[in-house]
Amino acid sequence: MTVAFKQQSADRLQESLGLVQRLIERQRELESAAARQDGEDAADALAPRHNLAELKQKLAQLHPADIAHVLEALPLEDRLLAWDQTDPARDGAILLEVSDAVRESLIEVMDPDQLVAALAELDTDDLAELAPDLPRQVVYEAMARLDEEARGQLQEVLSYGEDRVGALMDFELVKIRADVSCEVVLRYLRRFDELPNQTDKIFVTDEAGRLKGVLAIRKLLVSDPESEVADVMATEVVSFHPDEPALDAAQAFERYDLVTAPVVDERGMLLGRLTVDAMVDVIREEGDSEVLNLAGLKEEEDLFAPVIDSVKNRWSWLAINLCTAFFASRVIGAFEHSIAQLVALAALMPIVAGIGGNSGNQTITMIVRALAMGQMRTGQAGRLWRKEIGVSVINGMIWGSVIGVIAWLLYGSLSLGLVMLAAMTLNLMLAATMGVLIPTLMQKLGKDPALGSSVLITACTDSGGFLIFLGLATVFLL
Amino acid sequence: MTVAFKQQSADRLQESLGLVQRLIERQRELESAAARQDGEDAADALAPRHNLAELKQKLAQLHPADIAHVLEALPLEDRLLAWDQTDPARDGAILLEVSDAVRESLIEVMDPDQLVAALAELDTDDLAELAPDLPRQVVYEAMARLDEEARGQLQEVLSYGEDRVGALMDFELVKIRADVSCEVVLRYLRRFDELPNQTDKIFVTDEAGRLKGVLAIRKLLVSDPESEVADVMATEVVSFHPDEPALDAAQAFERYDLVTAPVVDERGMLLGRLTVDAMVDVIREEGDSEVLNLAGLKEEEDLFAPVIDSVKNRWSWLAINLCTAFFASRVIGAFEHSIAQLVALAALMPIVAGIGGNSGNQTITMIVRALAMGQMRTGQAGRLWRKEIGVSVINGMIWGSVIGVIAWLLYGSLSLGLVMLAAMTLNLMLAATMGVLIPTLMQKLGKDPALGSSVLITACTDSGGFLIFLGLATVFLL
Repeated sequence: MTVAFKQQSADRLQESLGLVQRLIERQRELESAAARQDGEDAADALAPRHNLAELKQKLAQLHPADIAHVLEALPLEDRLLAWDQTDPARDGAILLEVSDAVRESLIEVMDPDQLVAALAELDTDDLAELAPDLPRQVVYEAMARLDEEARGQLQEVLSYGEDRVGALMDFELVKIRADVSCEVVLRYLRRFDELPNQTDKIFVTDEAGRLKGVLAIRKLLVSDPESEVADVMATEVVSFHPDEPALDAAQAFERYDLVTAPVVDERGMLLGRLTVDAMVDVIREEGDSEVLNLAGLKEEEDLFAPVIDSVKNRWSWLAINLCTAFFASRVIGAFEHSIAQLVALAALMPIVAGIGGNSGNQTITMIVRALAMGQMRTGQAGRLWRKEIGVSVINGMIWGSVIGVIAWLLYGSLSLGLVMLAAMTLNLMLAATMGVLIPTLMQKLGKDPALGSSVLITACTDSGGFLIFLGLATVFLL
Repeated sequence: MTVAFKQQSADRLQESLGLVQRLIERQRELESAAARQDGEDAADALAPRHNLAELKQKLAQLHPADIAHVLEALPLEDRLLAWDQTDPARDGAILLEVSDAVRESLIEVMDPDQLVAALAELDTDDLAELAPDLPRQVVYEAMARLDEEARGQLQEVLSYGEDRVGALMDFELVKIRADVSCEVVLRYLRRFDELPNQTDKIFVTDEAGRLKGVLAIRKLLVSDPESEVADVMATEVVSFHPDEPALDAAQAFERYDLVTAPVVDERGMLLGRLTVDAMVDVIREEGDSEVLNLAGLKEEEDLFAPVIDSVKNRWSWLAINLCTAFFASRVIGAFEHSIAQLVALAALMPIVAGIGGNSGNQTITMIVRALAMGQMRTGQAGRLWRKEIGVSVINGMIWGSVIGVIAWLLYGSLSLGLVMLAAMTLNLMLAATMGVLIPTLMQKLGKDPALGSSVLITACTDSGGFLIFLGLATVFLL
């Protein structure tokens, strides 16, 4: 696909967005004006149509990725108005670029025929990326239009889990034999109308289709035309298996600064390739899911989603949070008698819980990342736990003393201050312990250590903090 | 630089790490055994040296990025033992790949001569990346060894802020003129020993050095050798200014699936290029800083850092958290009289604060991301606020009713349940309001909306939640 559309810097993209927004605003004004003076003035009746044509023209000048950005930044009704004015031939490319939530809102308003038409322009790997979001019937129709080879490829890609290398494979690649000269390769390449996107290497296979090596274009261009591919190609190639986690592949791309890499099955057959742009998306999504998880969101949200969609996206974490908060509340309830005798306890207990939660989140985030990056084996948990305990004791002594002294001065009770110091230190130690233990256990059980880590640790440090503080107070102060 | 070292899949990388760890463990055992039977057995005295040689050989087989990974996963004393066994000629490349915290621990143990020697192998842009972490004297010495052109480039790169495009520029690029034929270009390229990494396009400049266009390699390879560069090159090029934020450039790389792009000054002069591997790092770091910020860590931490370093990295957020917790505590303190009369309030108040914090973090995270991605202008804050208020009222009604009924049953007071319902709904509305307001204001004031967003919103919903709940209870229940 030629990129015939101007690519834009961030500033110019914001300008384009502003212009589209102004055109849409004017459209609404013109339409309501036209509706008011219905038929009175023929010239005015044309104005909305002219404005719409201008919008269409502006959108036609934008790169599909930029249209996607504009659509994401528009409220739903404006977004659909703009979506109506895009070139149908580019709808597929735009759908590929928008976020999942926005994609859903666009697909919802398209009828099956429009969708099938939009898909017609896409490559197999792009089709595979959209397929899970499309009505089943549309996917079948789009498949029926493919030639046999492409249909087989699409089925292959769809057979892998979304987080696997196989699901991100691309089949547009150049294959050559090892026993030809570089000259022949250059002549062969010249027969293409255009090389596939991001072709930084060509793949060397034998008759059976087994990968024998790769020939980097930057090697090919400096090689003697007479030399044989076998002598110039690299044979130690980092390649991926379609069942490998996509995140592992993305990290390898990052480590080795790769642009493309072959996907190869157990028997060494070349299945397809991975490209860096797909890997960038994987890295981005990994960061996203960590952030969403920490913030208690189920998935990326369409900023302008209807209220009800937002409620759905957020309710599960809220519900879990409520359950743990309720449990913590019952812990406090068990000490109501103590609080009735010394009301200061009620005012001080959130401090103990709060510092534990904050510190526990620090620890657990670090451990979860180290596990995800393969920098920590679960066997090292003991060593890291000792370190975290060290950190928590120091923090407990420092901050516990500060708050302890303040509590002493405020409530005139040295023993209350000492209980505060002890409770804060103990809760920080609990936070350190759970911060190491929770993700390590999750990993050992084969679960994703990131999932819910923040909620779990906060639950521990809240309930634990209340229990420790109120328990100590009941024993020593009352 | 040729990559003569085997690149590895995730599994094999873990194997290498395991092997290095075993060799280091054995080294410690052998050394202590040798120390015990000092001089008794000459054969045993050689064993540690053999083992060390094996470690050295293993490390020599690894890619610098893989050595970096191994070093990051090793506790400090083991890390330094392994670092001693790496090939000094590759030390510079390894330093480039390790995380900031680990880099610091390695540089600390190197003397200036070693450092200068390690830098000798690096390109200008890599040198520039390391420079901020190096002793000033070492940078001067390394600079003195460069030729004049490279020194000028290094000074240029160092003159830009770390988060600017200019700081990430790479000067290894191929330049050609527009008035030559593709044949001539191919012949010119053949004169190189090797093309720069990730060369997917060559840059077309005029005599003065102004960028006229780019010639994609994938275009060059399929073009008629007779045709002139001017006819084949693309003239509408996405280019970046060195003062532009690096994150904007990275997002453009992501949007347009770029591999390299030119950096150009106001006058159109080609200064250097950006490559996708540097942009991947920017995207990764952006995600990282969001996660670290949400978790209350100042920066990425060396997993095996001494306790005192961890304390330093974490104390600032803990201190801020303590201040806000103390403030919330004083809010409760103001209602001690009410709590003394109705102790149930102490048990229920953390639920009100907790759900507000959770919901506020959901809102603020979404808004911060939308602002960072340019998907939201501050002018849309009002519209988004209305939506968030809608979400919070629905959530308040649902969860407030659930908890309200439970409180009613638990404490036998319908009015307590109603106060609970009202307080939860109001605190959720406060969370929604502050969740939109805080980042929007930060953005308008030209500050980073992400910084401290989680702490700020939690402070509001804690203090606010206690105030609302205890206030309502005091008015209606006592």
